[in-house]
Amino acid sequence: MKAHVLIVLLIVFLTGISIKADEGMWPLSELDKLNLTDAGFEIGARQIFNPDGSVSLIDAIINLNGCSASFISTNGLILTNHHCAFGAVQEASSSAHDYLRNGLVTCKLDDEIPAKGMTVKITESYRDVSKEVLKAVKKGMSPLARTKAIEKKIKEMEIAAEKSNKGKRAEVAEMFQGKVYVLFLFTYLKDVRLVYVPPRYIGEFGGESDNWVWPRHTGDFTILRAYVGPNGESAGYAKENIPYTPKKFLKIAPQGISEGDLMFILGFPGRTYRHQPASFLHYEEEIRMPAVVRLYQWLIQTMDKASEEERDVQLKLASRIKGLANRMKNFQGKLKGLNNLKLTEKRKQEEDQLLSVISDTKLKNEFLTIQKNMSQVYDEMGLVYPTHHFVTSVHSNWSVLSAALSLVQYAHERNKKDEDRESPYMTRNLEKTRERLIRSVKNIHIPVDEKIAEYILMTLGAEIQPERLPLSIRELCSADSSERKKMISAYYDKQFLNEESFGKMFDEIQLNDLKKSELPAIKLALDIYPLTQQIKDSDDKWKGRLDTSMARWIDIKQQIQKGHFLPDANGTFRLTWGRIKGYSPRDAVVMKPFTILEGLLEKAQLGGDYKMEDEFRSLVKQAKNSKFFQDKIAGVPVNILYDADTTGGNSGSPVLNSRGELVGLNFDRAFEATINDYAWDEGYSRSIGVDIRFILWYIESTGASELLSEMTCSQ
Amino acid sequence: MKAHVLIVLLIVFLTGISIKADEGMWPLSELDKLNLTDAGFEIGARQIFNPDGSVSLIDAIINLNGCSASFISTNGLILTNHHCAFGAVQEASSSAHDYLRNGLVTCKLDDEIPAKGMTVKITESYRDVSKEVLKAVKKGMSPLARTKAIEKKIKEMEIAAEKSNKGKRAEVAEMFQGKVYVLFLFTYLKDVRLVYVPPRYIGEFGGESDNWVWPRHTGDFTILRAYVGPNGESAGYAKENIPYTPKKFLKIAPQGISEGDLMFILGFPGRTYRHQPASFLHYEEEIRMPAVVRLYQWLIQTMDKASEEERDVQLKLASRIKGLANRMKNFQGKLKGLNNLKLTEKRKQEEDQLLSVISDTKLKNEFLTIQKNMSQVYDEMGLVYPTHHFVTSVHSNWSVLSAALSLVQYAHERNKKDEDRESPYMTRNLEKTRERLIRSVKNIHIPVDEKIAEYILMTLGAEIQPERLPLSIRELCSADSSERKKMISAYYDKQFLNEESFGKMFDEIQLNDLKKSELPAIKLALDIYPLTQQIKDSDDKWKGRLDTSMARWIDIKQQIQKGHFLPDANGTFRLTWGRIKGYSPRDAVVMKPFTILEGLLEKAQLGGDYKMEDEFRSLVKQAKNSKFFQDKIAGVPVNILYDADTTGGNSGSPVLNSRGELVGLNFDRAFEATINDYAWDEGYSRSIGVDIRFILWYIESTGASELLSEMTCSQ
Repeated sequence: MKAHVLIVLLIVFLTGISIKADEGMWPLSELDKLNLTDAGFEIGARQIFNPDGSVSLIDAIINLNGCSASFISTNGLILTNHHCAFGAVQEASSSAHDYLRNGLVTCKLDDEIPAKGMTVKITESYRDVSKEVLKAVKKGMSPLARTKAIEKKIKEMEIAAEKSNKGKRAEVAEMFQGKVYVLFLFTYLKDVRLVYVPPRYIGEFGGESDNWVWPRHTGDFTILRAYVGPNGESAGYAKENIPYTPKKFLKIAPQGISEGDLMFILGFPGRTYRHQPASFLHYEEEIRMPAVVRLYQWLIQTMDKASEEERDVQLKLASRIKGLANRMKNFQGKLKGLNNLKLTEKRKQEEDQLLSVISDTKLKNEFLTIQKNMSQVYDEMGLVYPTHHFVTSVHSNWSVLSAALSLVQYAHERNKKDEDRESPYMTRNLEKTRERLIRSVKNIHIPVDEKIAEYILMTLGAEIQPERLPLSIRELCSADSSERKKMISAYYDKQFLNEESFGKMFDEIQLNDLKKSELPAIKLALDIYPLTQQIKDSDDKWKGRLDTSMARWIDIKQQIQKGHFLPDANGTFRLTWGRIKGYSPRDAVVMKPFTILEGLLEKAQLGGDYKMEDEFRSLVKQAKNSKFFQDKIAGVPVNILYDADTTGGNSGSPVLNSRGELVGLNFDRAFEATINDYAWDEGYSRSIGVDIRFILWYIESTGASELLSEMTCSQ
Repeated sequence: MKAHVLIVLLIVFLTGISIKADEGMWPLSELDKLNLTDAGFEIGARQIFNPDGSVSLIDAIINLNGCSASFISTNGLILTNHHCAFGAVQEASSSAHDYLRNGLVTCKLDDEIPAKGMTVKITESYRDVSKEVLKAVKKGMSPLARTKAIEKKIKEMEIAAEKSNKGKRAEVAEMFQGKVYVLFLFTYLKDVRLVYVPPRYIGEFGGESDNWVWPRHTGDFTILRAYVGPNGESAGYAKENIPYTPKKFLKIAPQGISEGDLMFILGFPGRTYRHQPASFLHYEEEIRMPAVVRLYQWLIQTMDKASEEERDVQLKLASRIKGLANRMKNFQGKLKGLNNLKLTEKRKQEEDQLLSVISDTKLKNEFLTIQKNMSQVYDEMGLVYPTHHFVTSVHSNWSVLSAALSLVQYAHERNKKDEDRESPYMTRNLEKTRERLIRSVKNIHIPVDEKIAEYILMTLGAEIQPERLPLSIRELCSADSSERKKMISAYYDKQFLNEESFGKMFDEIQLNDLKKSELPAIKLALDIYPLTQQIKDSDDKWKGRLDTSMARWIDIKQQIQKGHFLPDANGTFRLTWGRIKGYSPRDAVVMKPFTILEGLLEKAQLGGDYKMEDEFRSLVKQAKNSKFFQDKIAGVPVNILYDADTTGGNSGSPVLNSRGELVGLNFDRAFEATINDYAWDEGYSRSIGVDIRFILWYIESTGASELLSEMTCSQ
């Protein structure tokens, strides 16, 4: 960590911080203000993160494709969740070498397997760049122009930062909407390999039935290793690469943690919406989430059905199904929580309450105007949601058309100046984008993609006024069923689906050539492209309006409410802390904060998602004699529960004890806590981790003694 | 209690009794052997039951149509479950006076409403009559002859006992199958009235969703009153009747009970099967219960659908649906428990274990022979189960045919000597039988009954070889659908469905007249009657074989196992005790033993079976200031949980504290404890009661102060 600079602006905002609740995803800039000793920490803030850049815990924490993870050995060993490496394990698997089903135990470096598509992101430094960013905004700019100006400014700053920091990656994050921006510098490591993967029935025990559920018994961990070139520099995969030596790795505490103990988590929580107005919650609850849940239900059902017979099809679709199911259940939990807690209504009451204590009439009116403006934006968004939903669904789910649209867009972008391009097509992102596209084309399962096309056209399309749709879509929709089938199947041209020819097409693309293309998928994409741009523009316009509103909204709230005021999670580094603690989901029911091995056998009796191999059964029988057996809970602990404040992106975060030693691995939340993203509550906000004792016990039980000693002996 | 005589024979059996487990439904004869003081009782066995006949707690405990209940005032006030009086409340309700929906609060005796069909049964005395009964068995008798001889002997003894005890009712109960018989004398009170009924949304809160479930929040209580003639003698309903003065009534403890406290229950548990062999469990698990569950599912669905529109149809069917749903969920719980606990396999292992410790070769062989004999009986029963299922289903569900069959049977029986008749048609039972038939005819809902006919014929009938079925059934089955519909609808003749004309037919019935009847239902019943008799005979034959086997089986087990050995529940008086205690249904989940009022509001958010009126919501809001509010559990207690050993028939049993004071009202078990009937376990056997503080709080809240003072001030 070279140049930690405190975010001055944030300090100004954050007055009167007190350690009382466990709510809070604290950004680095705020750590010094916390009295960690009073909270029970045995280490100081500077041992977690040191603005002077000297080595601290933070140097062991990494971002891994949107998940969190940590270094746990001097040889670049990485601990994260099984579900975070799921896609890479799927990619490495075939019916012949089925690491997804059977797991992977490697004994030496040579056996480790490339984790394709995974990138380690190490935070090197950050600084507040709000002033510079906001300089791009000129008085009287339209909302659309404002958004575009900020976007462009950010790109320029990222390009400049990468130029002056050779080999580093620069990213600007919006900390408070429309208001506070921070530029982070990262080191990227691109050669990551699979070292130890438990079989799916352990790593995903309980499947979708147990996802977002406590009590939990999932061994959701995987171990990887980061490699660099022989010169120690970041490099793509090569046989001669050597293990990376991190500045810091976490010490493992094999004695684990107990009920009531302080714990904390470091990682990269994705998104929370706690500062958003009631009108946003209303839009989410009534418009967006129900529509997405309906779509996902259909998609999952369709892919599940297609996966039933062939293992290779299963492997192709597994990661997508898992991702969809995960988000769907999360949304269902949120919808249930919004409804049960009447959260939208409560948020509205909070706003009324806030309004009632504003004495200044001018401020009062400003507050009301902002509230109304935001509400209008969400109303507008709601009105045209079907069209947005249609376009988003094409991008995310109709793979062949999505790939064709990317080609069309790239053809439009490649002749622009770098900083004028859409982010994925900037030189600095192009390689990743190319890789992603080729992987998606390779993974197309034609019968499923055709069914998705039919559903998007005929179900989602039916909710849009026909005149809003491009001609080619209207033709598709009005064709008779067998005719439409024929038209759709024409999109799956070999030239298009072949990795090599697709790559060539991408590399040599020119808009004029495209326009002459005879490929039906390209023709369709060319016709739809203007609509996608129109959608992007209206998104930007709304963002422009919301950004200015939210910036003032936060200002006013801050001015009135005082107290601590943390930015919503935005994928940047955060600390959160709490205690190992059960909860009561309903009257007379108490959830204890530890589960034990016997719980797996108990659930296995139910069958279904609770799969179990005899091999594991006999391990459990011997576990009574293990050093990890805990008398207090009468078993070897499997999962732990705590009231720290987490969200998606905290998957794979280390759970640390008061001395900053590794005692667990965060991977999920209780169902009641899905609503966490909108409102934290001491009563129901609980997150779930794998107990480190389970990880050590399981690795030991499967005989991976080399790995175990690397994890525990080198410390 | 006039002549308590200890059952000498049982004493011989029960050696080495120790108070260690909470398992056990202790018959009266055993109480003196328990060291109640060591168990924490503050009263002695003689205060619960005194063989010398002086007044004790037992005199306050009554049997009410198969449920348990207790006297709680000197004026004959009775406390039992809402679900025990459900049928009577349904019968008293109409869309105009909907006591089932709205409840009933009476202010003076004159307002109390007849609880039609309800009879109070007060135990007066009992004696062991095994020797007399078994004298009827002659050497070399066939199994069928044995059963019939015992049946006849019992009837003769009952008739004789009633002759020599004017006004009393005599009943012989089989305590150990084929082996121990006890004759009980009862007083019957036939004028019972509804005094206080909570609305259904309280008395049945949670409906079928919560039935057999903890945590529970059901106000499952109802208050009735027993009346006698002005001379103090038992009498049918008459306006001039006066409240009955019981020998003893229970003192209410408004301070309630706490976690860990000793509690006990007195009542009439129905049936347990803990001494039955593995072959019986196998038959239940594989043959009988799955078939019954399938039938009940269909019946409930059909009746629910028919109830959807009209409140009067709902009222007609409510009690039947409730009964079916209750049994179905119980069976489902049992099937789950049998499967999860692998109980049949375990029972077999216990038998193998027992066999392995028998050293005497002759005894060993006898044990094996008995085991094989019983297994053969259950195999035979399994083979012809479809026919039995068909006939049983006709009797229990096809109401019009069932009534017609009763007429045919009565026509056959009425010319026999009283003691040779089937029990329902003996002079002493005839009035009850007549009442029951008229009520069932009155409650026929023709469209539902026709659908049931179609289902029994075409679905259950299809599983039987056609040659086993009577000609008329075969004709019905082979008719085309519209023809069959016509044939079925002809059974619902007005003459038959009219209460008065049906009563007249019953009173004047003669077999020769019946044979000339033109009523299609009678014609059909005459044709089916021989099959029903055949089924009865095969049941008796099996019973004969099982009785002799079970008698020796118990002998041998007793001889080998020593330890306490209690008879299975058989509807006779029992004491069971335990503690107020939570449990863990699965890893990391703990159930606490009290629920509170707020839990109702919490569940009410879910809608569905959790109905709630605003009136109740506001009562709950005020409850914080109530004297029944308990700081320890932060609320007014609603339901309580304990590990005493109960089964069906214990519904309505008083829950008593260590001093024998009323602290609750037993009404259900936790889902895991449905398996209780086959095997008791400290881990999962938990029963559920209404906390007396809820009953008092609710009565007080609804302003029934007269009733409250009768319950609490007269003590």
